[in-house]
Amino acid sequence: MSKPSLARGTRDFGPEIMVKRNFIFDQIKKVYQKFGFLPIETPAIENLSVLMGKYGEEGDQLLFKILNSGDFAKDLKESDLEIGSKEILKKVAEKGLKYDLTVPFARFVVMNRHLLTMPFKRYQIQPVWRADKPQKGRYREFYQCDADVIGTESLICEAEIVAMLYEVFENLNIKNIVIKINNRKILYGITETIDAAGKETDLCVAIDKLDKIGKEKVEIELLEKGFTLKNIENLQTLFNLPNDQKQLFSTLKKWLAGSEVGLKGVSELENVWKLVENLGISISKIAFDPSLARGLSDYTGAIFEVKALDVSIGSIAGGGRYDNLTGTFGMPGVSGVGISLGVDRIFDVMQELNLFPEQLSVIGTKIMITNFGEKSLPISLEILSYLRNNGIKAEIYPENSKMKKQFEYADKKNIPFVLVIGEEEIKIQKFNLKNMLNGEQTLLSKEQLIAQLYV
Amino acid sequence: MSKPSLARGTRDFGPEIMVKRNFIFDQIKKVYQKFGFLPIETPAIENLSVLMGKYGEEGDQLLFKILNSGDFAKDLKESDLEIGSKEILKKVAEKGLKYDLTVPFARFVVMNRHLLTMPFKRYQIQPVWRADKPQKGRYREFYQCDADVIGTESLICEAEIVAMLYEVFENLNIKNIVIKINNRKILYGITETIDAAGKETDLCVAIDKLDKIGKEKVEIELLEKGFTLKNIENLQTLFNLPNDQKQLFSTLKKWLAGSEVGLKGVSELENVWKLVENLGISISKIAFDPSLARGLSDYTGAIFEVKALDVSIGSIAGGGRYDNLTGTFGMPGVSGVGISLGVDRIFDVMQELNLFPEQLSVIGTKIMITNFGEKSLPISLEILSYLRNNGIKAEIYPENSKMKKQFEYADKKNIPFVLVIGEEEIKIQKFNLKNMLNGEQTLLSKEQLIAQLYV
Repeated sequence: MSKPSLARGTRDFGPEIMVKRNFIFDQIKKVYQKFGFLPIETPAIENLSVLMGKYGEEGDQLLFKILNSGDFAKDLKESDLEIGSKEILKKVAEKGLKYDLTVPFARFVVMNRHLLTMPFKRYQIQPVWRADKPQKGRYREFYQCDADVIGTESLICEAEIVAMLYEVFENLNIKNIVIKINNRKILYGITETIDAAGKETDLCVAIDKLDKIGKEKVEIELLEKGFTLKNIENLQTLFNLPNDQKQLFSTLKKWLAGSEVGLKGVSELENVWKLVENLGISISKIAFDPSLARGLSDYTGAIFEVKALDVSIGSIAGGGRYDNLTGTFGMPGVSGVGISLGVDRIFDVMQELNLFPEQLSVIGTKIMITNFGEKSLPISLEILSYLRNNGIKAEIYPENSKMKKQFEYADKKNIPFVLVIGEEEIKIQKFNLKNMLNGEQTLLSKEQLIAQLYV
Repeated sequence: MSKPSLARGTRDFGPEIMVKRNFIFDQIKKVYQKFGFLPIETPAIENLSVLMGKYGEEGDQLLFKILNSGDFAKDLKESDLEIGSKEILKKVAEKGLKYDLTVPFARFVVMNRHLLTMPFKRYQIQPVWRADKPQKGRYREFYQCDADVIGTESLICEAEIVAMLYEVFENLNIKNIVIKINNRKILYGITETIDAAGKETDLCVAIDKLDKIGKEKVEIELLEKGFTLKNIENLQTLFNLPNDQKQLFSTLKKWLAGSEVGLKGVSELENVWKLVENLGISISKIAFDPSLARGLSDYTGAIFEVKALDVSIGSIAGGGRYDNLTGTFGMPGVSGVGISLGVDRIFDVMQELNLFPEQLSVIGTKIMITNFGEKSLPISLEILSYLRNNGIKAEIYPENSKMKKQFEYADKKNIPFVLVIGEEEIKIQKFNLKNMLNGEQTLLSKEQLIAQLYV
């Protein structure tokens, strides 16, 4: 006999939580579909040859690896033990759990390249697994909700991503958000302009922390990373960008005039802005953020991030443009742009701000029929089926228990109506409908019952 | 660069398959909810202490085990290598992937015992993993769709399971099915009656094969298992049961008159039959099958199985009554009854019999707007948003490609309407709507467009 426990960093979802999570998923799916995205699913288990080397060394370590089946240790030698876990891993594990939805999607695209209609727009809502240290809000098993368009470089796709983000959070009632946009080409242009070309990565890492640690500490970090005082002097424009969009773009163009790539980035950014406006989206929630780098992902153009402003929590969505989704699998030249929504954080934001609609348990039972034992059972079951055949979610209390207990059940399960069918009711063929919210009782015929419940 | 591949026994689901699978899931959910079941989800990853020892020795071997994170081999000694995989396993893996939905559900019940309203009705639709040898129709990662009622021994629940099965397959249009029912107590009563009490397991295993290998070979197997000729002589009634329900029950009662348990089983069976009729379900699709044992599960009362009769495939659903769901986790006395639907087989049956509705891609784009480049883009994007804001799934072709290519895209994606917005159309503020099914073209204003698409 074992005392049961959850694996660290994993969670159960009971009915109340499920209803709320499904509400979020449904809203996201609805918007994704409205924009022409279609669902795909890939397995939880992938070959390690597909996963390893795609997420950096840290990522490789955070992959959950699955032991080979059967006598997995049969080829292990003493010498392997001496070399250690890394060597043993190769011999005992060929598979792992997926770490995100992007790499499996890339594999899917390569394996189905001849079947897919390009541009291909897919969405994917599935769990992923990371052997991270669990902490508040960070789990080892969690859902990602991705949408990507691949096979086109059109900036319309960037604008549509922004429009989708806007609509998803509108529909979820998370209204106070900012959709941050940056462009990797602008970041590169900046390094060229300040005469630190090639140090793009270090610059990204440092200015990504601007929000957290402030300008001075960023400058110190840049110095430590080998940037010169001259470099940093040239960087000052970055810390004093105007808020007004028009002025912003002209400032950037002037500053980055010497960098072809940088100017291309500004032009892309300006274009996305225009297209978003063409789509009728209010740009008041959209902001250029030159410190936005989203770690060291493979983004080559636009970079997106959404923050909820009323809650102190990390980003609730992120994504960007990449030029080489499938290169690692031998299929070059596939450009795409995508977004990933963090359902767990979105859930936390909605919970904290009390944003879930009140009438969410639409999937719950609408009416419970009481159980007075064998005599009334045939009629009770007949009415039960009659209700269900009329599309009403209904159940009967399975045992002939005390009425108090039966009503308590309905109450705890938030069932709004209880139908009492006792001997008296059967005699007169009218049944006692109790409204559990206001306590009202009404005597109704079978047909009247349906009319009442449809209201 | 690695050539990408799927892990053995796993599958990708592209949009066409997803739409069909979701149709099946939605129908099942709809019926489960109509009967008052609520959804829960448990993690993919469970502690091995929860999973091991619950599925027999073979099951233990078929569990996918997950390597501990970090330096997992640090405690391995040479002496462990000598003992072999079983010993090493204990030191390198603490977690595994769930093998079914029942054991995690039992863990969930025990851990949430004080929060759950009993009787508790839950459904659960999630993937499970088994390191089985992959073959046609058998996968290492596949979905189960379970519904269980726990915390009551009422036979109404058995009847409702039958009613749910009936309705699910009606709704899926799989009409030619048989819902087989047996009762474990009857099986036990038979062993008592033929004077072979205690050999219930061997009897089950042998007569479970009746369909496959026939009566004579079953008798030979029984002899090999130590049954006497006398035992087998006494068993003959089993092979000659009447088809008529009334006669069936009276024959069973006569035959098993000496076994209290057996008679209880017959009485339960008869009762379920009556309750199913009370629910208005046609019993023509329901059959008592004394050979039904569903392996060696922990069933203690009713046993269910559904077969599709027009396709040669195993059972498409199975389940039964158990008396001790959570005993292994230290919580005795939790009785329940449940059913598990096999989505992959249901999919195969529907595919083979061509049972999917024709108009399934309701989630796909309804209208694509052509792309004539920068000049027409502002109007095109405005119309695009207008359509979406009216609830119409719409997309724009992202590039200014040749019309032929744009129309091919719409065609391949089964988009039923294409809207042409060129310079001419913008001038007259009427847009050319092409019906991709019949080739018809109509010139429409913005408002007329909505009316047309809602038809």
